[in-house]
Amino acid sequence: PDWELALVDGIKVLRRVYKFKNFAEALSFTNKVGALAEEQGHHPALLTEWGKVTVTWWTHAIGGLHKNDFIMAAKTDKLLES
Amino acid sequence: PDWELALVDGIKVLRRVYKFKNFAEALSFTNKVGALAEEQGHHPALLTEWGKVTVTWWTHAIGGLHKNDFIMAAKTDKLLES
Repeated sequence: PDWELALVDGIKVLRRVYKFKNFAEALSFTNKVGALAEEQGHHPALLTEWGKVTVTWWTHAIGGLHKNDFIMAAKTDKLLES
Repeated sequence: PDWELALVDGIKVLRRVYKFKNFAEALSFTNKVGALAEEQGHHPALLTEWGKVTVTWWTHAIGGLHKNDFIMAAKTDKLLES
């Protein structure tokens, strides 16, 4: 499972599901992505559930995907290694 | 906007959207709800976005709502005051 292009309410988004061992590890990843979002001034939707986090990137201002969303997706992947 | 009953993939859930001033405050609330979930051993779905958190409670084991979900919803509301 890697990044997929999806349509949400007619808006193109980049979405990836990350799996974890439990709720606490999922929430910890949510916080890492949240810190990245604040640092970069670009904010995703983060769905935290037991054992998984679904990260969705898109650019609100253009109602779709910008090059920056792909960069944020790559940066999100890097957080897994940290 | 208060708790609403919704059907998600045929499963009855309790859902509420909480509004905040920015992303950081939303994520802070997500963490409060996450701590409550860990403490109570019952885990919701937490959708964190810029300025809002959508909290969804249901009981996986019964594929629907249990009395405990309503209690968790009430406890979630209390976190707003803390």
